[in-house]
Amino acid sequence: MTIDSAARAVVPRESGDDLAALAERIFRDVAALSPDVQGVSRPAYSATESKTLDYIEAVARSHQLHTWRDAGANLVIGGAKDRTPDAAAGYFGSHVDSVPQGGNFDGLAGVVAALLTLVALQREGAQLHTPLRVIALRGEESAWYGQAYMASQALFGKLGPKALATRRRDGSKVLAEAMREVGIPVDDIAAGRPLVDASSIRFFLETHIEQGPVLTDRHWPVAAVTGIRGNFRHRDIRCIGEAGHSGAVPRWLRRDAVFATSELIMRMDDHWATILQHGGDLVLTAGIFQTDATHHAMSRIPGETSFSFEARSQDPATLLAIEALLHSECRIIEKDRKVSFVFDDIVRAEPAQLDAGMTASILAACTAEGLPAEAIPSGAGHDAAVFAQAGIPTGMIFVRNRNGSHNPNEHMDLADLMAAVAVMRRVAKELTQ
Amino acid sequence: MTIDSAARAVVPRESGDDLAALAERIFRDVAALSPDVQGVSRPAYSATESKTLDYIEAVARSHQLHTWRDAGANLVIGGAKDRTPDAAAGYFGSHVDSVPQGGNFDGLAGVVAALLTLVALQREGAQLHTPLRVIALRGEESAWYGQAYMASQALFGKLGPKALATRRRDGSKVLAEAMREVGIPVDDIAAGRPLVDASSIRFFLETHIEQGPVLTDRHWPVAAVTGIRGNFRHRDIRCIGEAGHSGAVPRWLRRDAVFATSELIMRMDDHWATILQHGGDLVLTAGIFQTDATHHAMSRIPGETSFSFEARSQDPATLLAIEALLHSECRIIEKDRKVSFVFDDIVRAEPAQLDAGMTASILAACTAEGLPAEAIPSGAGHDAAVFAQAGIPTGMIFVRNRNGSHNPNEHMDLADLMAAVAVMRRVAKELTQ
Repeated sequence: MTIDSAARAVVPRESGDDLAALAERIFRDVAALSPDVQGVSRPAYSATESKTLDYIEAVARSHQLHTWRDAGANLVIGGAKDRTPDAAAGYFGSHVDSVPQGGNFDGLAGVVAALLTLVALQREGAQLHTPLRVIALRGEESAWYGQAYMASQALFGKLGPKALATRRRDGSKVLAEAMREVGIPVDDIAAGRPLVDASSIRFFLETHIEQGPVLTDRHWPVAAVTGIRGNFRHRDIRCIGEAGHSGAVPRWLRRDAVFATSELIMRMDDHWATILQHGGDLVLTAGIFQTDATHHAMSRIPGETSFSFEARSQDPATLLAIEALLHSECRIIEKDRKVSFVFDDIVRAEPAQLDAGMTASILAACTAEGLPAEAIPSGAGHDAAVFAQAGIPTGMIFVRNRNGSHNPNEHMDLADLMAAVAVMRRVAKELTQ
Repeated sequence: MTIDSAARAVVPRESGDDLAALAERIFRDVAALSPDVQGVSRPAYSATESKTLDYIEAVARSHQLHTWRDAGANLVIGGAKDRTPDAAAGYFGSHVDSVPQGGNFDGLAGVVAALLTLVALQREGAQLHTPLRVIALRGEESAWYGQAYMASQALFGKLGPKALATRRRDGSKVLAEAMREVGIPVDDIAAGRPLVDASSIRFFLETHIEQGPVLTDRHWPVAAVTGIRGNFRHRDIRCIGEAGHSGAVPRWLRRDAVFATSELIMRMDDHWATILQHGGDLVLTAGIFQTDATHHAMSRIPGETSFSFEARSQDPATLLAIEALLHSECRIIEKDRKVSFVFDDIVRAEPAQLDAGMTASILAACTAEGLPAEAIPSGAGHDAAVFAQAGIPTGMIFVRNRNGSHNPNEHMDLADLMAAVAVMRRVAKELTQ
């Protein structure tokens, strides 16, 4: 793989710089490669994404690491003596693409942390029985082609022809064309043939900024991730009642869709609280709630609402229970309030279980580093879920981050990333012994 | 007052027709005077409204009744010997205007019932110590100039210059111009001078179709009205929380505006149920409930809602209590759910008390006629409230009606109107003794 001149230009010749300074330089240089009106844009399977991989590859080589591309055109980085790509190995990594006008850390932080870990282990001359590699994945963000985890799904033969035919948000090309442009064997993906032998991947550890506020609120620099929540979703449930004069219809004759929908949300809120009290994992969201703007009025009993409903949990049984409760509560409210609820098709995603041994290893490393040893679930999806679903022992580390992700205001302190690197060094040694 | 030729043409020469047939003919002929694409349109202070009064005047004269116009250009009908307009008298009546593409019965039914009552009393030669008159009022509907009860407010000097300057919905003229065109002394209205001496009005009884479903549901042909609900309203309350990733923010860190607003509505619903259980009168409506369409999404915690809130009650203390409870519940929810509620200006309308003696008289008449003797509040406003607020003993009778009002599907059975006329005959005799 050659490094293009633009990437080469920003790679400094360095040697004794400390790891934090290296991380800072990589973030700055990669941001400079992917500017947008605000924040950064590194589209999936784009020239900008390729340049980013080229740049990271150059940094790795300047640290005497060995690099190559896998069959999915992702960047793989091994130790100086790691010369057999097909050999069994463990992988640390994440993705390098970003959402449009996104932040610089969602994805990239995990790649940088993995690279720093490998550099540090090589510097200290650590003896690993299983090779440790960095994988810098391409297309993870759904913003570009309407689907997430393209690179990891392609590796395991899970992407399929329907996904390959989806068009980029700007309409310029379909995913298959974009993948072909970076040298990926699209026919294999279309046929569902895996690009890698999953059994040769001994483990996968993804470090990622937290996309929620828990670590900030709890004052935890890092946390182990227990699992990735599955979900079920309805985009458009309708509650059908009857419109009427707000002054002229008494309570017992009303069929008020707003009161009925509010009651449903509060009944589900009660179940949510109970499940949490009993130690369960759950989040519920009704992100959309609308009366009909063409008919609603202050003095008109609302005859219809439309609303979305989403449940997320690490536990498939909790999701099934909430789905059943949603329907049973609707039936009770339908009787009480003389309305009817009409459901659109449900969309489900299974939870991904992360490896308990790896999670324990992460927590032990946190303790050894004098960090809080805490674990939380991930509500957002990650490439790690695809690795886990392929049967690979998979772990995740969250790094504290303010202001959420997918926006230019992501805020990760470098010190927190370095805490993750310290944990990853310990975990790497344990996993490769 | 002359009757124009169009109106004259549809007035039959009749004598022994029964009252129901007369009512049917008036409804048919007035509908024919005020057709629209669907339903009828009798705009306030329009030529169509004037023609309607002319037509009713002609019918009254054909039954040997005496007619004139009051200073508000409303039609007044007295007995054959009632020749002194300034003399003290009691009035039965309602309005003749309609909403655009409305139904034929909202307003007109009460005028017809009053006319039939007077015809019937004259036919039977009833001796009344106080003259009974029919008043057919003009502009009651707010649809035309943005405000209701224009005719009755003008009579009592309550309309004022601001109202006179409001423009018709089609932009064609302001209310003052429209009133001047039908001969009303607009300067007196602007100065707040009453057009009538309220002390000469001994009582006012308005019969009106029910605009809600209670009588239909209860199988009551008619009902006395206990009072006209006042209200308070907020058109646009905002609940401000914080948007976030639906999977990544746990329950204890959420500031979900939809859950908070739903909780507010359910808390107010609890208070509503309690007040009704204790015998109070109340209806609550949140006719508008919206998440922000430019930001909401199925997987985004909703950071803001906007909603309306309206309470109506016959009891001013109940309205004050609900208003206070609304704010105290908001404060509790603000603490619990880390949101804030931002209120727009409140708009208030006072309840109107109807005369207990007249209500009792209506109920006694119902019993005497073998009808259910029942009373319910009016949630909608009526001219009767303006008469009551002017200190005139005022009563109301509702007539059963399906499908609400202000639409072409109003459905009143003629038999129910005739039941109201029978009650009104008895009430008239009692009130004029």
